[in-house]
Amino acid sequence: MFQTFEDFQGASQSAGRVAALRRELGNQRLDGFLVPRADEYQGEYVAPYAERLLWLTGFSGSAGLAIVLKRKAALFVDGRYALQAPEQVDTGLFEVVQIPDTRPQRWLAKQIKPGHRIGYDPMLHAAGTIKRYRKSVEAAGGALIAVKRNLVDAIWKDQPARPLQPISPHPLKYAGESAADKINRLKKTLRSAKQDAAILTLPESIAWAFNIRGEDIPHTPLPLCFAILNARKKPQLFIDPRKVGDNLRGRLGKAVTICSDNDLPAALKELGKAKGRVRLDPETSPAWFADQLKEAGAEIAFASDPCLLPKAIKNPVEIAGARAAHERDGIAVSRFLAWLDQHAPAGDIDEIGAAVALERFRAETGKLKEISFDTISGAGANGAIVHYRVTRSTNRKLKAGTLYLVDSGAQYLDGTTDVTRTIAIGQPTKEMQERFTLVLKGHIAIAGARFPKGTRGQDLDPFARQALWKAGLDFDHGTGHGVGSYLSVHEGPQRISKLGKVALEAGMILSNEPGYYKERKYGVRIENLVVVEEPAAIKGGERAMMSFETLTLVPIDLRLVNKELLKPAEIDWLNDYHARIRKIISPHLTGADKTWLKQAVQAI
Amino acid sequence: MFQTFEDFQGASQSAGRVAALRRELGNQRLDGFLVPRADEYQGEYVAPYAERLLWLTGFSGSAGLAIVLKRKAALFVDGRYALQAPEQVDTGLFEVVQIPDTRPQRWLAKQIKPGHRIGYDPMLHAAGTIKRYRKSVEAAGGALIAVKRNLVDAIWKDQPARPLQPISPHPLKYAGESAADKINRLKKTLRSAKQDAAILTLPESIAWAFNIRGEDIPHTPLPLCFAILNARKKPQLFIDPRKVGDNLRGRLGKAVTICSDNDLPAALKELGKAKGRVRLDPETSPAWFADQLKEAGAEIAFASDPCLLPKAIKNPVEIAGARAAHERDGIAVSRFLAWLDQHAPAGDIDEIGAAVALERFRAETGKLKEISFDTISGAGANGAIVHYRVTRSTNRKLKAGTLYLVDSGAQYLDGTTDVTRTIAIGQPTKEMQERFTLVLKGHIAIAGARFPKGTRGQDLDPFARQALWKAGLDFDHGTGHGVGSYLSVHEGPQRISKLGKVALEAGMILSNEPGYYKERKYGVRIENLVVVEEPAAIKGGERAMMSFETLTLVPIDLRLVNKELLKPAEIDWLNDYHARIRKIISPHLTGADKTWLKQAVQAI
Repeated sequence: MFQTFEDFQGASQSAGRVAALRRELGNQRLDGFLVPRADEYQGEYVAPYAERLLWLTGFSGSAGLAIVLKRKAALFVDGRYALQAPEQVDTGLFEVVQIPDTRPQRWLAKQIKPGHRIGYDPMLHAAGTIKRYRKSVEAAGGALIAVKRNLVDAIWKDQPARPLQPISPHPLKYAGESAADKINRLKKTLRSAKQDAAILTLPESIAWAFNIRGEDIPHTPLPLCFAILNARKKPQLFIDPRKVGDNLRGRLGKAVTICSDNDLPAALKELGKAKGRVRLDPETSPAWFADQLKEAGAEIAFASDPCLLPKAIKNPVEIAGARAAHERDGIAVSRFLAWLDQHAPAGDIDEIGAAVALERFRAETGKLKEISFDTISGAGANGAIVHYRVTRSTNRKLKAGTLYLVDSGAQYLDGTTDVTRTIAIGQPTKEMQERFTLVLKGHIAIAGARFPKGTRGQDLDPFARQALWKAGLDFDHGTGHGVGSYLSVHEGPQRISKLGKVALEAGMILSNEPGYYKERKYGVRIENLVVVEEPAAIKGGERAMMSFETLTLVPIDLRLVNKELLKPAEIDWLNDYHARIRKIISPHLTGADKTWLKQAVQAI
Repeated sequence: MFQTFEDFQGASQSAGRVAALRRELGNQRLDGFLVPRADEYQGEYVAPYAERLLWLTGFSGSAGLAIVLKRKAALFVDGRYALQAPEQVDTGLFEVVQIPDTRPQRWLAKQIKPGHRIGYDPMLHAAGTIKRYRKSVEAAGGALIAVKRNLVDAIWKDQPARPLQPISPHPLKYAGESAADKINRLKKTLRSAKQDAAILTLPESIAWAFNIRGEDIPHTPLPLCFAILNARKKPQLFIDPRKVGDNLRGRLGKAVTICSDNDLPAALKELGKAKGRVRLDPETSPAWFADQLKEAGAEIAFASDPCLLPKAIKNPVEIAGARAAHERDGIAVSRFLAWLDQHAPAGDIDEIGAAVALERFRAETGKLKEISFDTISGAGANGAIVHYRVTRSTNRKLKAGTLYLVDSGAQYLDGTTDVTRTIAIGQPTKEMQERFTLVLKGHIAIAGARFPKGTRGQDLDPFARQALWKAGLDFDHGTGHGVGSYLSVHEGPQRISKLGKVALEAGMILSNEPGYYKERKYGVRIENLVVVEEPAAIKGGERAMMSFETLTLVPIDLRLVNKELLKPAEIDWLNDYHARIRKIISPHLTGADKTWLKQAVQAI
């Protein structure tokens, strides 16, 4: 199993830990310390050693920040965790503050007095974040101090060790482009921007550029490491030598100089000595890098990580891999849905049982490397919690007359999947069907959209909401996120959301996942992955238009569709989609599964 | 008549004028000079004295910039004028360069040599623009020099005098809020931003804030003047005293200190002496203001003009005025369309004749103060030119089997109108009907949209294109612009376009004008003005949604509608709209006009 369902241990030990942290503040002559939910790599998942925020506060969300002052402390979370955070933490110790209503720097500016010294670990915060905090703290007369050793590490006696999983090559048959070719492309980007080097601090960028993968953290095959991309010489990879086997050293060594992570500070000093112009992403690189480079005398060119856009645009091999992965995943998820329909009516399946079964069907493909995130398995009211994670204590039975929302994904060598289906358990209400159909209309509006070159994700996001808005409904998340190729299930810069400012380009993979959530009642979400297609001529038209190919191949529950609310073109889309599933998935099924699929994808 | 149809005089005198300008460059030890199509107020229309670009180059567009160097000269225009500019100017004298493909500062940086001195008139360029130019020029080793006297003025012997039209008060019964109340609101804005003063350089901002109007330039009732808004004392208006009558002086004098425009430099010095923090809009204020304030020692807070947003949000009196203006205008335009249907079939109406008739029908309301812009009266292929202005030499007959596009508006004391209709002359082709209907679908998608608070214009723009995109078509302009209240027909910050980053707020008036243009064949545009309505509950829904009320009341040509392409809800919108027109407009018509309207608005 790649997931557990244990409850988090809670906040019972928080008081002692906060007291210990405050003693440590005194030892280090500080008046406060920042504890973010982050490791050195600014990713969504962190290894156990970096769960400092969870350890200190009991809050288990994937984003958040605690600020511990001598007599006060606050936990900052976003809207997703507004309900969860106060339940998990001791609110007598931590004031729970919602961002962006109140930003940490504003709160800090009000609390601190002239002369106060607020500590932070420069490896855990992006340079841009620290710049904003520093401005507020200094305006209030305080100082923001980079600490040498993290204060939580100093008091956390049984802190787990850093992961040391081996790194493996990601074969060309999946990557589609050699590391040498990618590096050459990147070097050209740097030279044309008159940059001598770029610091890569995102493991997914390094994984993509060098065609390597790792197992250091859950769910995403990232190798935790840093790299320097040089405009005129081989890139340098800085990594604990224990993670590099001889096989990899031999293969990777042709394109990349492999260095010990201990050599990184010296390498940055060298860039400074050479008066190099060094590209650094202010929003993803730890502040420590900017500090080191400045001290060494380098000129910093703040700009986005140069791998982000090329990584987002998948090559034909990666796209073929994604199709194969989605066919495989579609078989597994279809078998799961057949199983669910068979067993759910008896009333003894619960959220954990369903998540376990789903993972088992995926494992039976023989190709499952990992699940791409903790399965969101939400029955009834739990389906209305957008980022729900089932635990033993929240676990619910799937009951007749309710909806079951399951959002899950797999990591295969040839591709990463992410799919959400909402399933009627027993007879759904008319309202459930209406709202499901409105969400489906939004899903189809995205899936079937045609759009000119230059269209940004934010230009498409409203299509997913148009029908809901007309009914006085909406959902409070973006419509789609970028997805990597056997990499992060959430990747940028592509996204379909109000914040999607980047033009969509052929080869980008995104999710299409409008939803609707009736608080404390039920949730609806319909999610497929799509890949952006090249502009193509349209009969009778004048301008080539881009479009999406839907990758995901899993039936949409017809028991929740109110056909009256669909336009003929929408009905055609749904029938065509289901006919495609039948054609591709059915030959791989047998017996009851095959029978189930046949009725699940019948034309309406 | 508020419009003429004369051809521009052309570029025959350009060579002599450019030569004279080059001699003047020598006199002033300059190597180049910038000639923008702009006056001191950065508006869309300029008075004849400020038509320096037209005088020098023969180019008559509403935006452009000439750069004249000693041996080279270029004219920079945007895509709207890519075809027109080379036809109007002597391309032996001026290289025509399209922005944003090549920006002026890039071109300059390539042309100039170290030591070169490029002159500009600091009253004619925004501070932000000059900052960008200066950066490029200085990077190339040159210098950008603010001249004391405009070089074109020095050589333009018969330059017209500056306009001196009287300013009049804009009565409270139209403005809906007293100048004193507006000024108090603005003072609060400044104080809460810790600003001591704001410089107002946009005449429409001053007109709105002080409830005054003028007649200095065509089509927009602007008073050309500047003002300083003080956070803690009366605002100061700087204006040629000959424009201020005793009546106005008495009324306005209570809320505003009226100063001579000659006193402006001293007033800016005083702000500097008091070490004031002065708000200045970098994108609309002439560079001269920033220079003066800096020299005087003031601290400049660059921020948008504080009147822009409050002016855009119309109060109930302005909205009621807009409704009355659109009813009056709807009667006039409906009478025009009836006249057109009666006379066009004979084949002897031309674009000028139609424009003249339209203005006559509007004048017959007895309330027409001006037209709000030069009527775009485009028959056949001329309808495909988005910013077409008919002249004697381009004038075309309205022929059977073609489309006629007419985009026009009126300035009434109670409101500004702007309406486009596309009319079938004789029998339209099936393609014309199909494409008209696709544009209509986009128009209806905007008109009938529901959207949550916080929605920006850019979130709605794609709705206007969705049907066109699916057919492989699009249009190359925004869907809608803001409209003032007896003020500019183009106002910001509200807009429905890819660039519409401002949230729409109840009371904002915008145009809804999707189009389609078949080059050298015909053009389609359907434009109504709409006002944003407060969020309202939707039956069965959960969230209040904003919407638009359509203000314009003019029939849409049913002969161009292909009903097969419309969804039931779209047909309902069209029939409801026409029923509303019949109810409101019909009682004001008689005889043939009334009969015409009845069939024009019949249900389909």
